[in-house]
Amino acid sequence: MSRRLSRAARREFKRRTPPGASPGLVVADPTAPPPQVSVMAYGQNTLVEEANPTLARIAELQKAHPVVWIHVAGLGDAKLIRDLGEHFHLHPLALEDVVHVHQRPKLEPYAEQLFIVARMVTLADAIRSEQMALFLGEGYVLTFVEDPGDVFDPVRQRIRSASGKIHARPAAYLSYALLDAVIDAHFPVLEELGERLEVLEDMIVLQPEPTTIAKIHDIKREMRVMRREMWPLREVCGRLSREQLDGIDDDVRLFYRDCYDHTVQIIDLIETYRELGADLTDLFLSSQSNRLNEIMKVLTFIATLFMPLSFIVGIYGMNFNTELPGNMPELNIPYAYVGVWVVMIVVTLSMLWFFYRQGWIGRKARIGLK
Amino acid sequence: MSRRLSRAARREFKRRTPPGASPGLVVADPTAPPPQVSVMAYGQNTLVEEANPTLARIAELQKAHPVVWIHVAGLGDAKLIRDLGEHFHLHPLALEDVVHVHQRPKLEPYAEQLFIVARMVTLADAIRSEQMALFLGEGYVLTFVEDPGDVFDPVRQRIRSASGKIHARPAAYLSYALLDAVIDAHFPVLEELGERLEVLEDMIVLQPEPTTIAKIHDIKREMRVMRREMWPLREVCGRLSREQLDGIDDDVRLFYRDCYDHTVQIIDLIETYRELGADLTDLFLSSQSNRLNEIMKVLTFIATLFMPLSFIVGIYGMNFNTELPGNMPELNIPYAYVGVWVVMIVVTLSMLWFFYRQGWIGRKARIGLK
Amino acid sequence: MSRRLSRAARREFKRRTPPGASPGLVVADPTAPPPQVSVMAYGQNTLVEEANPTLARIAELQKAHPVVWIHVAGLGDAKLIRDLGEHFHLHPLALEDVVHVHQRPKLEPYAEQLFIVARMVTLADAIRSEQMALFLGEGYVLTFVEDPGDVFDPVRQRIRSASGKIHARPAAYLSYALLDAVIDAHFPVLEELGERLEVLEDMIVLQPEPTTIAKIHDIKREMRVMRREMWPLREVCGRLSREQLDGIDDDVRLFYRDCYDHTVQIIDLIETYRELGADLTDLFLSSQSNRLNEIMKVLTFIATLFMPLSFIVGIYGMNFNTELPGNMPELNIPYAYVGVWVVMIVVTLSMLWFFYRQGWIGRKARIGLK
Amino acid sequence: MSRRLSRAARREFKRRTPPGASPGLVVADPTAPPPQVSVMAYGQNTLVEEANPTLARIAELQKAHPVVWIHVAGLGDAKLIRDLGEHFHLHPLALEDVVHVHQRPKLEPYAEQLFIVARMVTLADAIRSEQMALFLGEGYVLTFVEDPGDVFDPVRQRIRSASGKIHARPAAYLSYALLDAVIDAHFPVLEELGERLEVLEDMIVLQPEPTTIAKIHDIKREMRVMRREMWPLREVCGRLSREQLDGIDDDVRLFYRDCYDHTVQIIDLIETYRELGADLTDLFLSSQSNRLNEIMKVLTFIATLFMPLSFIVGIYGMNFNTELPGNMPELNIPYAYVGVWVVMIVVTLSMLWFFYRQGWIGRKARIGLK
Amino acid sequence: MSRRLSRAARREFKRRTPPGASPGLVVADPTAPPPQVSVMAYGQNTLVEEANPTLARIAELQKAHPVVWIHVAGLGDAKLIRDLGEHFHLHPLALEDVVHVHQRPKLEPYAEQLFIVARMVTLADAIRSEQMALFLGEGYVLTFVEDPGDVFDPVRQRIRSASGKIHARPAAYLSYALLDAVIDAHFPVLEELGERLEVLEDMIVLQPEPTTIAKIHDIKREMRVMRREMWPLREVCGRLSREQLDGIDDDVRLFYRDCYDHTVQIIDLIETYRELGADLTDLFLSSQSNRLNEIMKVLTFIATLFMPLSFIVGIYGMNFNTELPGNMPELNIPYAYVGVWVVMIVVTLSMLWFFYRQGWIGRKARIGLK
Repeated sequence: MSRRLSRAARREFKRRTPPGASPGLVVADPTAPPPQVSVMAYGQNTLVEEANPTLARIAELQKAHPVVWIHVAGLGDAKLIRDLGEHFHLHPLALEDVVHVHQRPKLEPYAEQLFIVARMVTLADAIRSEQMALFLGEGYVLTFVEDPGDVFDPVRQRIRSASGKIHARPAAYLSYALLDAVIDAHFPVLEELGERLEVLEDMIVLQPEPTTIAKIHDIKREMRVMRREMWPLREVCGRLSREQLDGIDDDVRLFYRDCYDHTVQIIDLIETYRELGADLTDLFLSSQSNRLNEIMKVLTFIATLFMPLSFIVGIYGMNFNTELPGNMPELNIPYAYVGVWVVMIVVTLSMLWFFYRQGWIGRKARIGLK
Repeated sequence: MSRRLSRAARREFKRRTPPGASPGLVVADPTAPPPQVSVMAYGQNTLVEEANPTLARIAELQKAHPVVWIHVAGLGDAKLIRDLGEHFHLHPLALEDVVHVHQRPKLEPYAEQLFIVARMVTLADAIRSEQMALFLGEGYVLTFVEDPGDVFDPVRQRIRSASGKIHARPAAYLSYALLDAVIDAHFPVLEELGERLEVLEDMIVLQPEPTTIAKIHDIKREMRVMRREMWPLREVCGRLSREQLDGIDDDVRLFYRDCYDHTVQIIDLIETYRELGADLTDLFLSSQSNRLNEIMKVLTFIATLFMPLSFIVGIYGMNFNTELPGNMPELNIPYAYVGVWVVMIVVTLSMLWFFYRQGWIGRKARIGLK
Repeated sequence: MSRRLSRAARREFKRRTPPGASPGLVVADPTAPPPQVSVMAYGQNTLVEEANPTLARIAELQKAHPVVWIHVAGLGDAKLIRDLGEHFHLHPLALEDVVHVHQRPKLEPYAEQLFIVARMVTLADAIRSEQMALFLGEGYVLTFVEDPGDVFDPVRQRIRSASGKIHARPAAYLSYALLDAVIDAHFPVLEELGERLEVLEDMIVLQPEPTTIAKIHDIKREMRVMRREMWPLREVCGRLSREQLDGIDDDVRLFYRDCYDHTVQIIDLIETYRELGADLTDLFLSSQSNRLNEIMKVLTFIATLFMPLSFIVGIYGMNFNTELPGNMPELNIPYAYVGVWVVMIVVTLSMLWFFYRQGWIGRKARIGLK
Repeated sequence: MSRRLSRAARREFKRRTPPGASPGLVVADPTAPPPQVSVMAYGQNTLVEEANPTLARIAELQKAHPVVWIHVAGLGDAKLIRDLGEHFHLHPLALEDVVHVHQRPKLEPYAEQLFIVARMVTLADAIRSEQMALFLGEGYVLTFVEDPGDVFDPVRQRIRSASGKIHARPAAYLSYALLDAVIDAHFPVLEELGERLEVLEDMIVLQPEPTTIAKIHDIKREMRVMRREMWPLREVCGRLSREQLDGIDDDVRLFYRDCYDHTVQIIDLIETYRELGADLTDLFLSSQSNRLNEIMKVLTFIATLFMPLSFIVGIYGMNFNTELPGNMPELNIPYAYVGVWVVMIVVTLSMLWFFYRQGWIGRKARIGLK
Repeated sequence: MSRRLSRAARREFKRRTPPGASPGLVVADPTAPPPQVSVMAYGQNTLVEEANPTLARIAELQKAHPVVWIHVAGLGDAKLIRDLGEHFHLHPLALEDVVHVHQRPKLEPYAEQLFIVARMVTLADAIRSEQMALFLGEGYVLTFVEDPGDVFDPVRQRIRSASGKIHARPAAYLSYALLDAVIDAHFPVLEELGERLEVLEDMIVLQPEPTTIAKIHDIKREMRVMRREMWPLREVCGRLSREQLDGIDDDVRLFYRDCYDHTVQIIDLIETYRELGADLTDLFLSSQSNRLNEIMKVLTFIATLFMPLSFIVGIYGMNFNTELPGNMPELNIPYAYVGVWVVMIVVTLSMLWFFYRQGWIGRKARIGLK
């Protein structure tokens, strides 16, 4: 999973326009999926939901309903985006940011709209990060995401169910609900990463493996990516909850304060996990160094026991002419062989006693950090 | 202990509402204990203490006494919480925060109340961290904690004892006394952690064990959790002591300044312990690396002594035909065996002298960091 | 490549004027290439492009066209620079900064011009960093770079193509277009560095080599150089997009906000790569320490297997006189040799069982971090 | 020394009042020494110095002299402190801080006094850190320290010597002189610690020992304690030199600016020493790892020389029946033994040449970092 | 060199007045050199240069010339300093700072003068850091340095040469020129340190030595000292270029902005070198750990090759009675010896193949980081 996210993260910085190109140019990525447009229009008692409407139909819906939400999934059609841009009078620089899916989260007030960029994290079989661009204008919300499949289904349900309070509220409240869904979608991902860190922690304490460090590295990498997008998103929510922006009244601002709280919580979590990751790296290195100590103890133990013994038996393997005086007379003494064994046992016991005093044996063997 | 706290800390981030759900929804955690409500109402000369009062009884007490403190322990009953919320006109977003026990400490002024969230640390047989939510309104304080058992008993005693000055003071003073109790309850926990660090420090210096690093890791983890909740709590106390908030007069603000001082002291302590933890990790790694050096010295010592000797005795174990000229004539020299011993003793002494010059032997053996 | 950049980076700090010299002195570097001057003058419907114009010709073009861009590539001719300085009334301190190519990016408003210094990164066969100085005055832009060859060709194309909107805009827009080209030229360089880090990451995980760390070190070094120049450049763009500066109207300021966004994105990327570099260093050290563990396991395995066996065969190599009682009677027992083999096989199997229990063998061999 | 300071530092956080106790409670530590009160009263031409005066006598002196300094050494008598508090109208919260000797340095303006808390470091046979509380009121200064023995003797001398300018100045100047003495007393302690670090640095470079790291650790610990108290003290002095506080006129404020400078210098020194401590840890670890390399070189050197030689002599110790063809005919060749020696010498020289090429021998042996 | 600077740096904090001494006391260091006073007085068309003038002569020159620069080298004569202080009405606290040569760079406006403290770095055969104190008053500049020999010679030359613009400018411009000389003198020192780091970097990559880390440590130490003095100096220059200070007009302020730029450049360089130093430490540790791996590979290689062979030859050195059945019949087989050699060669080749598969041999040997 991590590989995929991080490669996606890296790919995001491939720009489609060359350095020095004219600004405001909308060039669609040829590999991007074709757009699927859906529209939901609603008011106190009305609800219309359509797919792939024409611009004329959108204009009609705008007249008939207090809030219209146009959602574009897929950025493969530059003409459609330009047409929408013209219809809603979007600024060329903002439109360029919609198709350049490498933006940091940001909030830019233009004359007729608020332009918000955030990043949406989804957890299907792998973590995917994609750009969400949102325009909040008079009576409409316009959202662009990179691919079909998003985190907005609960919001759609709340619109469809008549009971929800969302019907009575302005477009700004819808923009809050959508941004909140994007932000809250980080929680399950973080819980997943947290659980993995927990598993790794147990692994390091119980049975460290060489691959553990690479797994920690992968999680750290995803944390970095998340943090990089969360800090500016926090700034965006902070401004939305503090500043007097057109189209956002005091009541919605209170809800944005809740959004801001959530971003702060997420950043807290990320920072905590990052520190935990750093600590686990230390713990792993320490466990590796501990293993080395254990290995070296085994080697030293073996060598220290057997080298003196090998020396002793080597002595009596010498071929001195024992018939001459002073040349290994012990070879011709009865039971000398037994004596040699006694000597070797004494040497061995001395060695064991030395190791015991050093604390290498005698307590139960500790391997790893158990 | 640490495992439990940290798992609690992690669990705290499990949200009960799915991402994108309608805000202000109060959904009780099915595993939460059922609530126990207690009420203390008092004034200059009056004191009433009751358990599980009805809302009507609470209203009655509010009329009869200047200060009413309603304490709810256990969040297992969503209806009760919603009823209390209705009775005291609490904001839905605040009520949602009461049951979502994963909040950062925060202070939010609403129209009729101040809403304060803090985290309460208790040290029974293990450190437990739970959320405390406090509403300060006109003439009442309303507190919610996750479980029965809290740190408020000294405050209850002060209310019960007629001598305390608390009777003459407004509800804001009670809110101070409760928050102060929550904050001061961190001191014994920190003292406990500090003492453990001290024990670990002595262990590292005197007799490092592989598990030491895991213990330091656990303490660092708890420090991280505490720090994450203490920084925003400091901010809360700072605002309470500085800002002109409804219901808090200058006199109580002075007491809140004292609260603020305590949070700063706690953060100082946490930061000091965190740095100490980092230092101890370094110290431990250094002691491990020192042990490795000691082990390798033993191995090298043994190998360097016995390898040359084994070589020498190996030479005279060769089976050259000594009757031919130039083939090991020394085997047939009287006392040659003694000569070999002399050679071997000289070699051994040279080796020992080499080690002495290297500083490996001759001073008293230093094992570990002693 | 990295060596070259970093040496260039270091060389940049060689000052040509001695400490204490009179300020505002324009002393050309004798090794600098001779200047090539080119001029582009354009308006709504006009375009003139010339090489090496005289000052009189420049004055003429200034009268005839709304925007004149004089570009000087090469700083080897102090007189030319002083002449241009006199013609455009440039401040001596600014002129000094033009030839001292060791400036940090900065923005300095003078009476008649804005003076901007940035650093231009080009990626031919190696990364090159050179200083770009830009004066924005009434109706003209004056740029100085160190060498022929720059990142401005796309801007030149946009001027030459009649369709571009650049013709209708003031000199301030040209200054934006040039600065934007300089900033955007960092993206391909960063992508290149990012890809190298990715390659190194795979190398560390799959097959770490001793040179890997030096390569990471080189990339970190270039990141440091880039970061040092990007932070002040961000500041420059921030001021250009916020402050009310002479000659920059609201419309162009909006474009400078885009520039600012790009610098923030670049800094984000640099910081991410820097953290990645630090992480890779950790990962590499861990892989090295893991390799050491593997090597030591092999050594310990071999020594532990063969030392006891060598001891056993050593015993039966002793030359005790077996005719005396108690002296190695086993040498004279039939099939004793087979018995010794049985003992040795049992010892070997015990050792292998010990290693299996230690987890050193029995699972597939893991070498490195695979 | 360090152990004592750090344990004192830790003890300082033992609170004598339980969490949740009523604020403003003055509870004397039963182990604290009994107080010794001394008073100095002076004016332009007058000087009275007394020990253990009554409150009435103090009131008398206050009337007769422009400045009265009451100094209380020892906090073992709660009644005396409460009496003084009543006499000078001290706030209960401030009095509580006097006996709770775990305060951070702080400055608190009350209605009738300025309340300053600082920490006094004395260097007798060990570093001792104790709390100094100072009240500056109209015409008097009241100081509380934990034990007899303080850093104020030079100030007392200046008061006693008629020549000093202190007689002509107000009580605020006395408060400056006392605080300045407390701050300046840190310099000799820091010089002492700096000299120890210097000694340790030389030790690491010339002859590292396992205990070195523990000594660095101890100094770092004391630095941490000092830093924790110095940062808020800097803040206190900054406020005293900047803010318009009652009782401190412009002239004295200028002297407090000097105090502020000194705290900044001390913090600079502490930070420098802290960084030096971190660097020395790195240097020590590197020297340890270098020693390991040296040890391993010796082992590898020995093993590489003798293992091949032992193998060769082992070959000729085999007992093949040399009367059969092809079975070790060399054993029966004259001077074959000499030939074996030649072979062994050649092998040894090859090994030495290999080590020489590796750079392990041939230059003078480098042990440690010399 | 480094040792000397750092010891000087440490010495600088030895205070000559005891803690608690009366402020404003001018006590000359008995070891300080006796002062050499020189004076330069100049105006549009005048220039007088004298050594050791009397106070009366100075007063005379002040009347006759718009700018008088009195330079005192050596602080060994307290009386002279006090006399000058009286003549120019210098504040006692400022005079005390002149002789206490341990000040941080600072800017203090007094009634009649600006008082600037900076540190002057000179590079003769060693880096020397000394304090420069500068008073800028109406028509005069008064400078104090610790020793004869300074960085002001280029400024003197500019005054002497009639052509310089310095003659036409006020005393404030002279103060700028002097401070600029002090700041710019850091550049050659930094270049020197940078070149040393470059040499060390090459050494680590090509041929690391144990002393390398100590050399890096020394450079880091000097960087720390420089940084500690540069940050406040930057602040001083920032204030001089921003604030409306008496005696500094807008024109000179512009030049001080240049000074400020230089301090920022120097800090940039220092920070870059500091990071480089930290990176080199990592690189060195990694190279050391790599060397250890190489050493252990050699050891393991040798042991793994020869231990099995020694075991094999050991077997056939056993003395079993081959006349009994089952006892080493192979000893009596013709050409068995050759068979043993075949076995040993096969074992050796297997080992080599194992090492080849492990990647230890077969590619060219890599020693160090080459």
